[in-house]
Amino acid sequence: MDTTKKTIIVFSGDFDKVVAAFIIANGAAAMDDEVTMFFTFWGLNALRRPDKVATTGKSPVQKAFAAMMPRGPGKLTLSHMNFAGAGAKMMRRVMRQQKIMPLEELIDTAREQGVKMIACTMSMDVMGLRAEELIDGLEYAGVASYLGDADEANVNLFI
Amino acid sequence: MDTTKKTIIVFSGDFDKVVAAFIIANGAAAMDDEVTMFFTFWGLNALRRPDKVATTGKSPVQKAFAAMMPRGPGKLTLSHMNFAGAGAKMMRRVMRQQKIMPLEELIDTAREQGVKMIACTMSMDVMGLRAEELIDGLEYAGVASYLGDADEANVNLFI
Amino acid sequence: MDTTKKTIIVFSGDFDKVVAAFIIANGAAAMDDEVTMFFTFWGLNALRRPDKVATTGKSPVQKAFAAMMPRGPGKLTLSHMNFAGAGAKMMRRVMRQQKIMPLEELIDTAREQGVKMIACTMSMDVMGLRAEELIDGLEYAGVASYLGDADEANVNLFI
Repeated sequence: MDTTKKTIIVFSGDFDKVVAAFIIANGAAAMDDEVTMFFTFWGLNALRRPDKVATTGKSPVQKAFAAMMPRGPGKLTLSHMNFAGAGAKMMRRVMRQQKIMPLEELIDTAREQGVKMIACTMSMDVMGLRAEELIDGLEYAGVASYLGDADEANVNLFI
Repeated sequence: MDTTKKTIIVFSGDFDKVVAAFIIANGAAAMDDEVTMFFTFWGLNALRRPDKVATTGKSPVQKAFAAMMPRGPGKLTLSHMNFAGAGAKMMRRVMRQQKIMPLEELIDTAREQGVKMIACTMSMDVMGLRAEELIDGLEYAGVASYLGDADEANVNLFI
Repeated sequence: MDTTKKTIIVFSGDFDKVVAAFIIANGAAAMDDEVTMFFTFWGLNALRRPDKVATTGKSPVQKAFAAMMPRGPGKLTLSHMNFAGAGAKMMRRVMRQQKIMPLEELIDTAREQGVKMIACTMSMDVMGLRAEELIDGLEYAGVASYLGDADEANVNLFI
């Protein structure tokens, strides 16, 4: 099978959309495609470490954003029917029942399969997120890098 | 005109987004393109039969999801300004006034034009939806099938 | 560098998503790509003039939609954590702090760089928006025009 390239912009931080993004990315990687996921805005929340990380030099607005946004895959909520977190819990439970990998494992698998995960540096500035607050194994880049990858890919999604 | 291929992932079950997806799909099919629509997560709600269908063997969580989610195109709500359904009603009314096909006909037209409509089996498991609850004329497949179609297409959208 | 083509459907009228769309569009235009942005549904709100424009012949439903929807980039709200506008204000402030162009300038820059901005005429009918309510320099077209551009492009996003 030919190796082709795919890119996915993960703009959303909704649990269900992030799951969909990783299922597509892992499916493509399993078919030997080169996959780049570019995390921007709320999508960065899927890459946050669950523990609080001390940082310095954030502006009050950046601190407020960082404090209010979910820390990592375990805290993401649903785009619909979230009901203060109950919906997301329900979806996690039914995924377990149906033997679908939890999001944390989907992320690990993506990394093991060589999916390139890029955190958008401009979005990090806006959201007030520092590299030390994000998981290991990421690259850091901007829109020019995304466009370079997208130009070589045959499937480019915005999620 | 050359026949080219298009794929659309319909992740959203918002009335307005589903309408947009079918207008693009029907437009492309009218230009002789081969179009595949791949319905995942909330997008499956657009394919539900409006009447309640008896099913067995669902887990309580699957039952809860199925009970709370809208049944078919007539029940979908807006992504913005829904106001407990009033916004969606307004949009349906203005579409009639402007002689735009209602969503039900957009779906029928897509089928008549040979648009391939695939229900994502993994999402059906998560949402607790069975084939007998969905409209006729669908195919059932997973992410590998989507990626196969997307690899041959020149336009791939995630809606 | 080869000139290639890109298309972006701007369906969303959320401040954060519209910003993302223009950052991608301007980035691609800066790399000499031909970029077409196709504004549909809520995305049209980003193109509204901030001042009220007298129009005639709108149906009551169209008037209601037009009255309730935000007028121009300064009024758009966030897709998440909007808190009655406070979130959008926070994001505008942090963009200023980080020396990121405000949305109004992103739109001007797109125009100066020759990004083709198309307002979807069918959506204008649904939302009850007239050309005189939208900013200058737009083209007006429908889905067939979009599909023609997308067929020639190597990156096609739906935002």
